[in-house]
Amino acid sequence: MQRIKSKFDAFRQKTNIVIYGTNTVSGRLFDLVLLGVILLSVIIVMLETVKGFDIKYHHELIILEWVITVFFTLEYILRIISIQKPWKYIFSFYGIIDLIATLPMYFSLFFAGTSILTVVRALRLLRLFKILKHPQFSSQSTHLKEALIASRGKILIFIYFMLISSIIIGSVMYVIEGEEGGFTSIPISIYWTIVTLTTVGYGDISPITPLGQAIASVVMIMGYGIIAVPTGIVSAEFANSNRKKPRSERINPCNECGTEGHEFNAKYCFHCGAEL
Amino acid sequence: MQRIKSKFDAFRQKTNIVIYGTNTVSGRLFDLVLLGVILLSVIIVMLETVKGFDIKYHHELIILEWVITVFFTLEYILRIISIQKPWKYIFSFYGIIDLIATLPMYFSLFFAGTSILTVVRALRLLRLFKILKHPQFSSQSTHLKEALIASRGKILIFIYFMLISSIIIGSVMYVIEGEEGGFTSIPISIYWTIVTLTTVGYGDISPITPLGQAIASVVMIMGYGIIAVPTGIVSAEFANSNRKKPRSERINPCNECGTEGHEFNAKYCFHCGAEL
Amino acid sequence: MQRIKSKFDAFRQKTNIVIYGTNTVSGRLFDLVLLGVILLSVIIVMLETVKGFDIKYHHELIILEWVITVFFTLEYILRIISIQKPWKYIFSFYGIIDLIATLPMYFSLFFAGTSILTVVRALRLLRLFKILKHPQFSSQSTHLKEALIASRGKILIFIYFMLISSIIIGSVMYVIEGEEGGFTSIPISIYWTIVTLTTVGYGDISPITPLGQAIASVVMIMGYGIIAVPTGIVSAEFANSNRKKPRSERINPCNECGTEGHEFNAKYCFHCGAEL
Amino acid sequence: MQRIKSKFDAFRQKTNIVIYGTNTVSGRLFDLVLLGVILLSVIIVMLETVKGFDIKYHHELIILEWVITVFFTLEYILRIISIQKPWKYIFSFYGIIDLIATLPMYFSLFFAGTSILTVVRALRLLRLFKILKHPQFSSQSTHLKEALIASRGKILIFIYFMLISSIIIGSVMYVIEGEEGGFTSIPISIYWTIVTLTTVGYGDISPITPLGQAIASVVMIMGYGIIAVPTGIVSAEFANSNRKKPRSERINPCNECGTEGHEFNAKYCFHCGAEL
Repeated sequence: MQRIKSKFDAFRQKTNIVIYGTNTVSGRLFDLVLLGVILLSVIIVMLETVKGFDIKYHHELIILEWVITVFFTLEYILRIISIQKPWKYIFSFYGIIDLIATLPMYFSLFFAGTSILTVVRALRLLRLFKILKHPQFSSQSTHLKEALIASRGKILIFIYFMLISSIIIGSVMYVIEGEEGGFTSIPISIYWTIVTLTTVGYGDISPITPLGQAIASVVMIMGYGIIAVPTGIVSAEFANSNRKKPRSERINPCNECGTEGHEFNAKYCFHCGAEL
Repeated sequence: MQRIKSKFDAFRQKTNIVIYGTNTVSGRLFDLVLLGVILLSVIIVMLETVKGFDIKYHHELIILEWVITVFFTLEYILRIISIQKPWKYIFSFYGIIDLIATLPMYFSLFFAGTSILTVVRALRLLRLFKILKHPQFSSQSTHLKEALIASRGKILIFIYFMLISSIIIGSVMYVIEGEEGGFTSIPISIYWTIVTLTTVGYGDISPITPLGQAIASVVMIMGYGIIAVPTGIVSAEFANSNRKKPRSERINPCNECGTEGHEFNAKYCFHCGAEL
Repeated sequence: MQRIKSKFDAFRQKTNIVIYGTNTVSGRLFDLVLLGVILLSVIIVMLETVKGFDIKYHHELIILEWVITVFFTLEYILRIISIQKPWKYIFSFYGIIDLIATLPMYFSLFFAGTSILTVVRALRLLRLFKILKHPQFSSQSTHLKEALIASRGKILIFIYFMLISSIIIGSVMYVIEGEEGGFTSIPISIYWTIVTLTTVGYGDISPITPLGQAIASVVMIMGYGIIAVPTGIVSAEFANSNRKKPRSERINPCNECGTEGHEFNAKYCFHCGAEL
Repeated sequence: MQRIKSKFDAFRQKTNIVIYGTNTVSGRLFDLVLLGVILLSVIIVMLETVKGFDIKYHHELIILEWVITVFFTLEYILRIISIQKPWKYIFSFYGIIDLIATLPMYFSLFFAGTSILTVVRALRLLRLFKILKHPQFSSQSTHLKEALIASRGKILIFIYFMLISSIIIGSVMYVIEGEEGGFTSIPISIYWTIVTLTTVGYGDISPITPLGQAIASVVMIMGYGIIAVPTGIVSAEFANSNRKKPRSERINPCNECGTEGHEFNAKYCFHCGAEL
């Protein structure tokens, strides 16, 4: 009994290294295989929704689906077994996604029509963002993240402003255009306002009265202009973090007088003339 | 009589603190409740315009509308009573909005079909911008406001340029495309030009002659390119104000007078002349 | 005879001051009246193209058109008479526009159907850009102009790149989509490419084959991404000219040691400690 | 025999200078003529696809096509003959394009319906990018290229993020909207997501359920907002490279060693230590 337990512990440890580790060859290989299978599973779900393809290869797709489902199930069980605190994983963000990506296939055995739920597998694609933690991208993505976090406050105010404006403009357009132009309710009018403000412009709804078109013109110019606000915010943050980085790299201080800010190729302090 | 007056004065004072104050618990609570009721009133007006929902819950919506109208009426009366200079409030921007947000419901008792005017209640949402004065957001929103004010002049010139261009291009397109393509009048052509210049592109009107499509292509590339102008203006202003702020924050204070913002290589305080 | 000539010379001089001058009261008044009449003439031409309005007020509009035409004719003659070198004005940009804005109305007397040419009057709106030379706007518009001129070279390369890409992508899409999807010829496909690259997206033509939609997706992401290029160019130029200006304004040098770059509120030189 | 070979060598050398050279008059002239012929060939292919034009001038277009094909064939043979290492050219990027731009016309002799392949001639337009290496544009285009290369890493992360988001959002929309709204399969839904995220908005597919429209609104605001990311990245890079350049240009050189780029308040040369 003791022997079985110690063997199981050794297995758990090995599995843990393979599944959660990123520094060993086997760990990295597992990550690659997993990402590959996730991509494959998403492609299969996609192809199933394409009529012409599904009719031809329905059988093969179903078989592949089951193979992947079994793989995901095994992976899920091994993840639980090999981790120290299983509950922490089970209720973590990725833990929940891993579960709901596996279940629908089993459901479809009992309830017809639930196979559409396999679409939730697309959520497992979020694991692909892990790649951004890879050393090759990490400095770049950290840079991106920092700039976005720094501009978060202003972006939120901006979105808040846009939402309130959309409600007010949408209400006004509902009264002006009425139902003939497709503005059948205030929520639809708000939807139209967002479509217009963001310069998407589907054209499924568009004003037909002169006054409505005049207001729409103002909304468009507004939307065209205020794109400058988030862009300006983020640009300034990027420029800021760009400026900070080279400076901290460049600043080798003078040993004599302590003046900082010498160019990287400076040989003498520009303040006291001492050799650097 | 004296006692009633003094009691009324005490009531006025208390009400004033609750309604206009923002530092007491009751004042903040009132603000929260008010914002909640405003949001609720807007949602109700929205739902009334959704056919399917209105038919089912018409009765409940009307009752809720009246409850909110009575609340708004009471609030309006209390605001007038509790303030020192009632006329100043009544003719203020928010005073007028508060009034016209309350009246339509009473009108609808006498004139059929005027209930659509309750839509003006959406204007009360403007009070939600007050939140931006909250300490948590105020520095950010001040920053935003300053950058926008600084770029106001250039933005105005830009809009002026866009409007005149739109009129000229619209007139040209009217002559080229004529009525078959949907360019039924010059105002409509100008509307199309704005739709195209701002890259919204509904597609309700689109050129069909080769020459018209060629000019449309130029207009699109123009619109695609000149978005750079407002964006560049605002970006530069943000970068500018970003550069100003961190400087004053990070830079070494004078030991004598405490003035901050000295250049990193300054030897003397620029304010009191003491050595740094 | 001599007297008549000297009287005529005096008249010419006075007229010149009124028409071409901008420093006298009468000169500025004339400019204002002229801009007003130009705006009015454009509005009238617009209204004539609006069916409902034209039917009701056709007579009045025609009369107003003739009044404005006579005004423009008089202005044109006076401009020629009062200037030193008439030919220079006649063949100048504005001279030609002034002429072709006046002629169509006279043509319409002899040739039916030419009244549509009055639309060219919209070109006279270009005179409205003169306002940007007004002292109140001139510094801002100079700033704008400089930044645009500085980024001209890069913008041209960018447009060159976009045009060649459009031709290549358009040709490819013509082969892939063929005529069913609306891609009836290569020029039309190029038009579609520009509509897509600039994110306008009318939807009058849109791909229907899977491969066409895949390529369209790439084109869209490309268009969405490369908007960053002109924006980045212009932003950088604005930031550049912003940075230059304040510096030259701020730099009050120290009288003792000549060090520049003191903050505007500095009382002592940060380098030698002398009072500023 | 020897004489013929030496004559042929002289011919090869001369041809090489004309075709590959850019410093001689004849070399530059050849480049200009070639670009002209390429443009002409593209225009002819375009015109052939325009029904009305092709019917009228079919004969003339075919003759011109053959003239150009012969010209391209001669050019291709001369390029191979005159270069030192023919295989290097044949398998180079431009070598392959030059070949496949010539072949289709010969194919059309044997296989009906392959004349559409002449469209690949548009690829020869890529040679027009050579102009950007011209001294007049080279500094500007180098500047552009550097900024784009510097921001490549972040742009890639951004596109990666957009693609994964598109797949997830597309899958969600497929489940919500279903086939009535035009979301007939997941690939189509992903296509719609890209159309919306990039603010193109054709309107060939647009959500019709309230929940779908709500999610679409979020996607639009997301797409409207995240355009700020690539723009911010590129803007910051441009600003960066702009800042570097002017510094080295404007700043005072050392009298001793001539090193430039000293800060305006530097007292000693950072390179040789001499007093400035």
